[in-house]
Amino acid sequence: MVRIVVDGMGGDDAPRSIVKGAALASEEYHLHIILVGQEERLKEELARTKFSKGKISIHPASEVVEMHEPASLSIRRKKDSSIAVSVDLLKEGKADALVTAGNTGAAVAAATLKLRMLEGIERAGIAIPIPTLAGHSLLIDAGANIDSKPKHLLQYAVMGEVYMSHVLGVKNPKVGLLNIGEEETKGTDFIKESHRLLSSSGVNFIGNIEGKDIFTGNSDCIICDGFIGNVVLKVAENLAESIAELLKRELRKSFLTRLGAVLAKSAFLNLKKKMDYAEYGGALLLGVNGRYVISHGSSSPKAIKNAIRVAGECVNHHVNKHILERLANQSPTT
Amino acid sequence: MVRIVVDGMGGDDAPRSIVKGAALASEEYHLHIILVGQEERLKEELARTKFSKGKISIHPASEVVEMHEPASLSIRRKKDSSIAVSVDLLKEGKADALVTAGNTGAAVAAATLKLRMLEGIERAGIAIPIPTLAGHSLLIDAGANIDSKPKHLLQYAVMGEVYMSHVLGVKNPKVGLLNIGEEETKGTDFIKESHRLLSSSGVNFIGNIEGKDIFTGNSDCIICDGFIGNVVLKVAENLAESIAELLKRELRKSFLTRLGAVLAKSAFLNLKKKMDYAEYGGALLLGVNGRYVISHGSSSPKAIKNAIRVAGECVNHHVNKHILERLANQSPTT
Repeated sequence: MVRIVVDGMGGDDAPRSIVKGAALASEEYHLHIILVGQEERLKEELARTKFSKGKISIHPASEVVEMHEPASLSIRRKKDSSIAVSVDLLKEGKADALVTAGNTGAAVAAATLKLRMLEGIERAGIAIPIPTLAGHSLLIDAGANIDSKPKHLLQYAVMGEVYMSHVLGVKNPKVGLLNIGEEETKGTDFIKESHRLLSSSGVNFIGNIEGKDIFTGNSDCIICDGFIGNVVLKVAENLAESIAELLKRELRKSFLTRLGAVLAKSAFLNLKKKMDYAEYGGALLLGVNGRYVISHGSSSPKAIKNAIRVAGECVNHHVNKHILERLANQSPTT
Repeated sequence: MVRIVVDGMGGDDAPRSIVKGAALASEEYHLHIILVGQEERLKEELARTKFSKGKISIHPASEVVEMHEPASLSIRRKKDSSIAVSVDLLKEGKADALVTAGNTGAAVAAATLKLRMLEGIERAGIAIPIPTLAGHSLLIDAGANIDSKPKHLLQYAVMGEVYMSHVLGVKNPKVGLLNIGEEETKGTDFIKESHRLLSSSGVNFIGNIEGKDIFTGNSDCIICDGFIGNVVLKVAENLAESIAELLKRELRKSFLTRLGAVLAKSAFLNLKKKMDYAEYGGALLLGVNGRYVISHGSSSPKAIKNAIRVAGECVNHHVNKHILERLANQSPTT
């Protein structure tokens, strides 16, 4: 059975939401889950929850990296933190994939320090599926690396292509570079150099795309530096919530609009489901030597359950093996 | 009467939308409008439109800078383009403010080359009002300058403060720096240095804000480099449209949801109005020695009309005078 190690203490509502999510996953998927963290607290939460006996075990870790601690430092100092121990288990082959909803910086630092990179990859990138009018696109990097070089963007492109084709089944996925204009003369020197590199690589590069093109879904992989990716992601999340809130306020204003809202409820629920990050279950940290899913800090139990599913899929689809093969066949410009 | 010079040939649907917008403005506001561009074409469009006689005049310019031409080059080469001639009229004092919906890069280049900067400002910034849960915030820079230094961000902050307080009447506006985390240790070196500079300035700086904080409206001025500002703006615009499209698709799915949509129509229209960029009429190019409004390339006549209104407001509120006064009182760290 595929074994998923889950950082039991990482997340805004940890360990409660994490344990509940693991419990849901244990009932739904054919996976073994190793919850890592403070034993007593995890046991306490498990005792309160229905789960599939024998499919969840606990592995102790005494320390916790808090959500706002400095990333690398906390990994170096807290050797027995739930995230550090989780990564150790993955590294030692005692688990096949990892899920954490903890401090993203610490999660990335633990992965890069302990697992190292795949051969040919210099920087890990957070790859996150985002809903579009056409289905889904993959944004990479959503914040692992905020000082990337053009060659890192090319590596993201290769990894994104592999993920989209092998996991999501998109044939010959299109890769777009996020910029402030479509023309190749647009943007900073960093972006222009990245454009040149992507153009001469074996990647199916469709050129620059703008912020306005992201949600139309013209591009299957959206490549950018982690700073911009992180801002875009948080803007999108918050704007969607703000629009929902503004609409709710408007709908409350009269009897007719309230009635209309009741009748149209199923449409709102379907839309909400489509936009809900919890359905997708988290982002992948691509490029590290291990299967690594990073969930939103505010993940609900459902989001954690889905993150565990995604981690299992990564195991079954051999993403890292395909990335290595793809890099071996890459043109010499990379 | 306040005189607004309008680039008649700039915009996706120029000169038609521009002339129609000018005509609407002539009927609604106490302003004189100078339309600049190819005389015959402008006359032709005017002849088709109802407008307030005596409040619109035409000034000839034989050339047009197309939407995708390289910015500075086209300004240097096309001396008789509608944007170049419009800026000349502003510079010569033959108009009090300018409106253009043309090539943004060319509009910024023409302004900075011909008008020069306000004393104490090194780079112009595009300031755009965005709707939030709390009302409006001002995002600056939305794309005038994609290689900014920390001191430029401080200059944006000062200009944003002045605009929010003197034009929009916000008392002691709060300034936030767009970053990937709230802690001052987060972000690139550029961001950390900007944070230090803003902290020690006289600006009402509330610290870093994240993409998720933009639309909550906690910060009155959102300060960022033009690359990120431009991407954020286009992402937000497109996401809002995509959500509307997805909701429409869901609402069409059954009789009940269609009926609900009809009953709730006023709520949707109110929301649309709140989110509609055309209501705000354009962005200000702050920092140049002249009042300068840059509208969206796809501006509707209504958007142009509102841009002309905003240009008139800038004249009446003496924004540049207040910026100069504010800079004169600025602490020596700037």
